Amino acid sequence: MSAKSLYLKRAWYVAALSSEVDATQLFHRRILGMSILIYRDARGEAVALQDRCPHRFAPLSMGSRVGDAIACPYHGLRFDAGGHCVHNPHGRGQLPKGQVVRSFPLIERHGFLWIWMAEEAADPALLPDFAPLDEGHANGVGHTYMKLPVDYRLILDNVMDLSHVDYVHGEIITTRGQLSPLIPQVEETDHSVSASWDYSQTPPIGIFAPFLPRPEETARHSIRVTWTAPANIQLSIAAAQDDVPFEQGVSQYDLHSCTPGDENETHYFFATRRNHAEEDGDYNRFKTAAMHAAFETEDGPIIAASQREMGGEEFFDLKPMLLSNDLAAVKVRRQLQRAIDNENATSSGWGRAVARS
Amino acid sequence: MSAKSLYLKRAWYVAALSSEVDATQLFHRRILGMSILIYRDARGEAVALQDRCPHRFAPLSMGSRVGDAIACPYHGLRFDAGGHCVHNPHGRGQLPKGQVVRSFPLIERHGFLWIWMAEEAADPALLPDFAPLDEGHANGVGHTYMKLPVDYRLILDNVMDLSHVDYVHGEIITTRGQLSPLIPQVEETDHSVSASWDYSQTPPIGIFAPFLPRPEETARHSIRVTWTAPANIQLSIAAAQDDVPFEQGVSQYDLHSCTPGDENETHYFFATRRNHAEEDGDYNRFKTAAMHAAFETEDGPIIAASQREMGGEEFFDLKPMLLSNDLAAVKVRRQLQRAIDNENATSSGWGRAVARS
Amino acid sequence: MSAKSLYLKRAWYVAALSSEVDATQLFHRRILGMSILIYRDARGEAVALQDRCPHRFAPLSMGSRVGDAIACPYHGLRFDAGGHCVHNPHGRGQLPKGQVVRSFPLIERHGFLWIWMAEEAADPALLPDFAPLDEGHANGVGHTYMKLPVDYRLILDNVMDLSHVDYVHGEIITTRGQLSPLIPQVEETDHSVSASWDYSQTPPIGIFAPFLPRPEETARHSIRVTWTAPANIQLSIAAAQDDVPFEQGVSQYDLHSCTPGDENETHYFFATRRNHAEEDGDYNRFKTAAMHAAFETEDGPIIAASQREMGGEEFFDLKPMLLSNDLAAVKVRRQLQRAIDNENATSSGWGRAVARS
Repeated sequence: MSAKSLYLKRAWYVAALSSEVDATQLFHRRILGMSILIYRDARGEAVALQDRCPHRFAPLSMGSRVGDAIACPYHGLRFDAGGHCVHNPHGRGQLPKGQVVRSFPLIERHGFLWIWMAEEAADPALLPDFAPLDEGHANGVGHTYMKLPVDYRLILDNVMDLSHVDYVHGEIITTRGQLSPLIPQVEETDHSVSASWDYSQTPPIGIFAPFLPRPEETARHSIRVTWTAPANIQLSIAAAQDDVPFEQGVSQYDLHSCTPGDENETHYFFATRRNHAEEDGDYNRFKTAAMHAAFETEDGPIIAASQREMGGEEFFDLKPMLLSNDLAAVKVRRQLQRAIDNENATSSGWGRAVARS
Repeated sequence: MSAKSLYLKRAWYVAALSSEVDATQLFHRRILGMSILIYRDARGEAVALQDRCPHRFAPLSMGSRVGDAIACPYHGLRFDAGGHCVHNPHGRGQLPKGQVVRSFPLIERHGFLWIWMAEEAADPALLPDFAPLDEGHANGVGHTYMKLPVDYRLILDNVMDLSHVDYVHGEIITTRGQLSPLIPQVEETDHSVSASWDYSQTPPIGIFAPFLPRPEETARHSIRVTWTAPANIQLSIAAAQDDVPFEQGVSQYDLHSCTPGDENETHYFFATRRNHAEEDGDYNRFKTAAMHAAFETEDGPIIAASQREMGGEEFFDLKPMLLSNDLAAVKVRRQLQRAIDNENATSSGWGRAVARS
Repeated sequence: MSAKSLYLKRAWYVAALSSEVDATQLFHRRILGMSILIYRDARGEAVALQDRCPHRFAPLSMGSRVGDAIACPYHGLRFDAGGHCVHNPHGRGQLPKGQVVRSFPLIERHGFLWIWMAEEAADPALLPDFAPLDEGHANGVGHTYMKLPVDYRLILDNVMDLSHVDYVHGEIITTRGQLSPLIPQVEETDHSVSASWDYSQTPPIGIFAPFLPRPEETARHSIRVTWTAPANIQLSIAAAQDDVPFEQGVSQYDLHSCTPGDENETHYFFATRRNHAEEDGDYNRFKTAAMHAAFETEDGPIIAASQREMGGEEFFDLKPMLLSNDLAAVKVRRQLQRAIDNENATSSGWGRAVARS
């Protein structure tokens, strides 16, 4: 009741890659501290239920499908996609009225399944538009998923502040020391924070150089990251030579989205759409795998180690030494916390299950 | 002092199978949150001590036997079966007076060692009689033990409500959908709860069909489970055809007994006595192994997963959706909790060691 | 601020064997609940820093050396051995003033690196003198290190009370039952506690017998242990035959020093200097390995099991049954606790990070 949620609830979180949930599977993931079952109905539409039978609390994902209903593995009760009990093989077979399993609105968009975890009515307008991910050849976009044993805000910090790139990552995305000295342009609205860097480097960034007219020569670069609630960061990067405008240069449009499993576990989703070698499926697979590996072997271990050194304390309580590059990341943390505090001040109900114990 | 026990203390719990404790071994098991040492004296009589030297708290089970005494592995102090120090090799060798290691009454009966964990005098009358386990050929009874990472009350729920059988278990004990629709007959006394189901199925239950006159044809079945404190469930099942009374049919008499290791660990003991193929040692081994496997691979994983989904909350606090089949299990939980509350209201002393921290 | 430290802080703890920290390595160890980085500067002098970047809390030990400075693995900030930021590649490159990473005084002596964990100025006079470790042939002294999952005070108890030797250890150091019956001579000053035992045994103690004139015959033995704060125990043992004084007998001079990693982890350091077979490198390696093995396979498992049986309770709260041999160990616990309490009563500041949560 009065327990406060750690998380923003009135928001859309990525629950899964579209490709993770196939036509027959009972897919399970822990989201904001709650077990969630996701599956597709006969029409292919994905639905989400709390992954817990209301009778004796067995996970429904251990059960089986009977048409579009799910049969509990323990006593065979069946629930429809709306969380109503539609079959009770016990006693006189009476069915409880109303929704007995919590269901969650889902939207499938941009290659992801987005879930709404608040008890208040879902507001589709709160799902930001990442339409560029959908535009272009099917081989020009890649999606991936990683699970990390960290607080999701440490990943937001990582992506909002790209000054780490030259220290953490290797040849393929180094800025050759050009980005760090820049003080990024930071813009904040009441629902977003963005940072942008414009600079030149020679040779150009490794992922783009082969697609530029003169791979060994200087190119102008533009990078912009934009956070929107709860945990999406859209990153655009472009490089161009001569007087070619960025819109006609080599570029890609990425989305990094973080979903807390719980306080110390993050589901990290990533998509990247590029405007070059769009039809090359091999290159697409290579690019996605490289991104996955970079995060898993480079950022991931440092972030996990930082979390251990923080010893369970809140970031600002540790009085971090902040640099000019941190401005956007700090604004994200503050705007996110204000939104959570505001929600807790006006919320009630189901939230209890995910409160800090 | 005022700390409350989570467990009923004035009661007999199964500490071990008789066969687990041989003539020479120092057997260790954690029971109600306390480490217990069990061994047999020279006459073969089993004794139980707290498995902790009172000097520097080394486990006595890591020590050695000197006659019927146990020598501590750390400094060689020796204790007799009553917990008195009988040898002190240090200084002038003074022996502390009185009981310095807590000892626990044990009764060996029905193939089990039963332990009394309360500080109050043991009351043998509180050990229910399961004499049928002892009657008949030695190959007609089997005992087994399993450890599960769950609250013991979830196993009581499982056995008291057999409506799960058709959903969790396979061909050998399916009731072919006949049991679930029945509303069991529930009886409660001030120290027991029982539920019974009477029905017919075709063909008969798999474990009995081969021993019935016409294995493919309908048989009447009778099943009865009876809980007694703290955590014993006696299950009787019989099948008969034509006008043969159940007493002359094919039947077995089982005991399921659960002993909490701690809040999240249960020692689950099982014995089964049958009235058919009694002299067949191979069949006896097969039957015990099948029972063991059924629980470990079918009920066990679902119960453990349910415990995880309960997230440390008390069962009734989660407002379970109860069905007609749950009546007996609910009565058991309530009667057990009343007994624990009553005991806590009138208890004092040693209880502290097992209190919830 | 008002949080109390569990540990004595104004004292020197062994942080590492000298040999553990080589010329290039960034060595990490957790000490009194804090991550510590140790490395050697260009002159070979060892320095210690908190192993945590003040920016985003990445472990500096995951970074790299740039001369005598350490570059953070995450954003490339560099810190000198005094904890000052000497390079900031971001924005205008401003350097924060003052010490931004906590540094810790180190003294290298007797084959160990000793660390001062208090915020108050280090007092070298508080490092006891163990000069005999340094005197003699290089092959006459051995050092070793073991990590144990126990409260360090349980190891102090172990070494201060040698009456366990005949029960825990084997032939090489048995006293053949001679030590236990003695009531040790205990002496206490305001900064030390010692216990000594003098007795004869036949044959002499296994480690010395081969070096005595008549290995099979009776020898006089003298053993003395002396604790000094925070967790050093100096053990001297000698054996002699006929009227040879102990100073001319066969002897060794050992240091046991325990450093808490945290409440349940101890870094246990050991050094032994002998006056016989001093130039024999093979024997030296054998002797160190034997000591290491004895602790790891004999004392260690019993101490770890005792800690488990204590269930997180404080030793004296469990009302241990104390023997005459425990006197010195009890005095050590009491003197140590008085020193900690006294320090907490007069301390402030940094201590918070290692307080019991």
